[in-house]
Amino acid sequence: MKEITIKKLLQNIEAFDGQNISLKAWVNANRGNNKVRFISLNDGSTVSSLQVIVKEENKNIDISQLDDRIVHLGAAVFVEGTVKYTPSSKQICELVANNFILLKDAEDYPIQKKAVNLETLREIPHVRHRTNLLRTVFLIRSTLALEIHKYFRENDFLYFNAPIITSNDGEGAGETFVVNDENIESPFFGNKKATLGVTGQLHGESFALGYKKIYTFAPTFRAEHSNTKKHAAEFWMIEPEVAFYDLNDIINLADDLLKTVIKKTIELHPDEFKFLIENIDKNLLEKLNLFINKKLTVLDYKDAIKELEKVKDIFEEKDIKFGLDLATEHERYLAEKLIGGPVAIINFPKDFKAFYMYQNDDGKSVAAFDLLVPGIGELIGGSQREVREDKLLERIKEIGINQEDLQWYINLRKFGNAGSSGFGIGFERLVMYVTGVDNIRDVIPYPRTSGNIKM
Amino acid sequence: MKEITIKKLLQNIEAFDGQNISLKAWVNANRGNNKVRFISLNDGSTVSSLQVIVKEENKNIDISQLDDRIVHLGAAVFVEGTVKYTPSSKQICELVANNFILLKDAEDYPIQKKAVNLETLREIPHVRHRTNLLRTVFLIRSTLALEIHKYFRENDFLYFNAPIITSNDGEGAGETFVVNDENIESPFFGNKKATLGVTGQLHGESFALGYKKIYTFAPTFRAEHSNTKKHAAEFWMIEPEVAFYDLNDIINLADDLLKTVIKKTIELHPDEFKFLIENIDKNLLEKLNLFINKKLTVLDYKDAIKELEKVKDIFEEKDIKFGLDLATEHERYLAEKLIGGPVAIINFPKDFKAFYMYQNDDGKSVAAFDLLVPGIGELIGGSQREVREDKLLERIKEIGINQEDLQWYINLRKFGNAGSSGFGIGFERLVMYVTGVDNIRDVIPYPRTSGNIKM
Repeated sequence: MKEITIKKLLQNIEAFDGQNISLKAWVNANRGNNKVRFISLNDGSTVSSLQVIVKEENKNIDISQLDDRIVHLGAAVFVEGTVKYTPSSKQICELVANNFILLKDAEDYPIQKKAVNLETLREIPHVRHRTNLLRTVFLIRSTLALEIHKYFRENDFLYFNAPIITSNDGEGAGETFVVNDENIESPFFGNKKATLGVTGQLHGESFALGYKKIYTFAPTFRAEHSNTKKHAAEFWMIEPEVAFYDLNDIINLADDLLKTVIKKTIELHPDEFKFLIENIDKNLLEKLNLFINKKLTVLDYKDAIKELEKVKDIFEEKDIKFGLDLATEHERYLAEKLIGGPVAIINFPKDFKAFYMYQNDDGKSVAAFDLLVPGIGELIGGSQREVREDKLLERIKEIGINQEDLQWYINLRKFGNAGSSGFGIGFERLVMYVTGVDNIRDVIPYPRTSGNIKM
Repeated sequence: MKEITIKKLLQNIEAFDGQNISLKAWVNANRGNNKVRFISLNDGSTVSSLQVIVKEENKNIDISQLDDRIVHLGAAVFVEGTVKYTPSSKQICELVANNFILLKDAEDYPIQKKAVNLETLREIPHVRHRTNLLRTVFLIRSTLALEIHKYFRENDFLYFNAPIITSNDGEGAGETFVVNDENIESPFFGNKKATLGVTGQLHGESFALGYKKIYTFAPTFRAEHSNTKKHAAEFWMIEPEVAFYDLNDIINLADDLLKTVIKKTIELHPDEFKFLIENIDKNLLEKLNLFINKKLTVLDYKDAIKELEKVKDIFEEKDIKFGLDLATEHERYLAEKLIGGPVAIINFPKDFKAFYMYQNDDGKSVAAFDLLVPGIGELIGGSQREVREDKLLERIKEIGINQEDLQWYINLRKFGNAGSSGFGIGFERLVMYVTGVDNIRDVIPYPRTSGNIKM
């Protein structure tokens, strides 16, 4: 008798009807009386639970020992029983127990039947994933990650690991964490200032030059003190880089990647999306499907500015003109109101974009794009890279970055570099977009934000 | 005319015979004369190159412009041509060019025909992957990583992201990197000392308790000053954790995982293994296949000590007795000489093992295992976890760990924890084992070791 997951059982109940199965799982409801008990089990494979029925007449089981004062919520149990397919009742599947063993009870278990709010749950990151909502979020998070790996693999990308500890500040943005061992007299990395990477892109470019298509999927760090719903000090990023691609190619890649992985994730999680629709956002699937089935809108920054200008009074920042670094309020307006779905804004002013972006002929803008989505704003940022050494050097000097530290990166332009393009996806923002959960703290197992390093 | 990868072409030459294809790639050989040129291209999809033949009679191409003083090694080119299947010649496939465009030449390209030694190549991590050996290593590294993800997915594991920045020292081993922003008056994480995680295991256990089967795959950090061939300050680890598993179950998982992913990787990289056999270790495949096809040997630590005692004179550390923390020389003897392949040593003395390991009834040993492999020594370390709260607390006090910091972890034992087991694989050591490359610096794109943070 093979152990199976509840997910596999529920996906194929008819085939299991009448069969004997066994499983180990945790109790999340225990009701009934001394004649019959209804004990709901969850094994983490799905948000759905399996109802086990224990009857007094079963001589293998002492039903008096399954009282809810003995078998508490959270307890670990082993059950063996017969699957009963009951399509006409509320529970379309039951397991009639032949054997039921309490493996380990729970005491002072913080997840009780009464719903607990998300803020309180953030205090117990080691247990909160056993609530329906967080269980759902982390199941979808896992599937999204694995679908992303699968997508890149099927499209001939090399999975590349950029260094995390680095002596470059990739974005030139500051706000990095500094890394030291505790030996002050002889620091681990010598005189070099070592920081936690804010991007794997520069290193990624070096591997695209040779492997053609590469991507990273790794943790990234920003010592940003901003205390918002969408910023964390530690988050995961996916950064593909493709040699020979231009801005248009890379936007198409971003679009196809997102559509593919979201579509697959929806297919793989019917119960979880049902739960999210009932509890988080009743229009969630509708919105996601609208995006999946529609061509991505591409909007030039100049035109976006014109659109924002028309409604400037609704914004806190009303000074809308070429040169404005879009704030979340502007981004959300464009995605939610103007387009009603994801939108790629292209050709941003070079002044607030990174030094490595390809400089357009107008002398003012760069071949960059931000992909904005409803509810969040920026989900993806990317660009075609500046492959002309003179242009790149000019920009490095303009901004005042230390050329020496970047000489290896500049030199890549000498070695058969016919151009490349890439982007970064904030993975947690993708999880937020797909689940409809609006706080980044609720899509990261153990979130790190300013002043918060719980456990 | 679809662009294809050289790998896909070479895997299926007969099907492509006579067809027109196009591709963008880099030159790695350019010889011939003004009548005919043989230009070898590599696109990073395989270690193998594709030979392109350009003939003077082709009017689309000015062959005088393809001289090796014009098209240098490393140059990026576009080629379009007809596939010619030539099974009887040395090159079993050629591409007869109809069009050949130099997209971007290379200058001062450091990879020339003359072989460069590995140590010199370590100075140029941004280019060395364009040599045959390093290209091979990073192709296999990528495939191993993706096969590991695939294995866990197919076996119902949740991909879990443990925090990297943590306030726990999971191994109780010290040697951690400290993380700060540069604001000394008001540190980012307040009064908590923040370090880079040395393991995701403690957090992983909290998720196994609910999701049942989880794994991490993430960078890990040790501020170890040891300057050996197998230690790096930054490396990737895979850490599965499974609820309800005991020591025996988890060893079986480790064995099955390794065998499955190594087997698949060999299947997917015939050309790369051919290259490794010719250049690194002529017995490589033989050794790997021996492991794949044989039941894993399990040896009790007590019995391993007896075996080592018999040959103690060959070791630097000759004081062989219960309590000895095996050094690499002992590990390698057991794997290479005694067993002649991977071996799992179990039931180590508790004194040099971590506090969270299950204490055996003998009062001296813990239900831990190390999986040792030839050439490297320890590849995997794991254990059944101590689920008895009193035993765990006793050990925490004995070792002198701060209980308060770990209270959340200890509390997991109250919430239906019927036991779990897990292990950690050093991913780079796995890449070393599979490729036969003997220095960890050559299997990490940008290695970080004491004093070394190049780029």
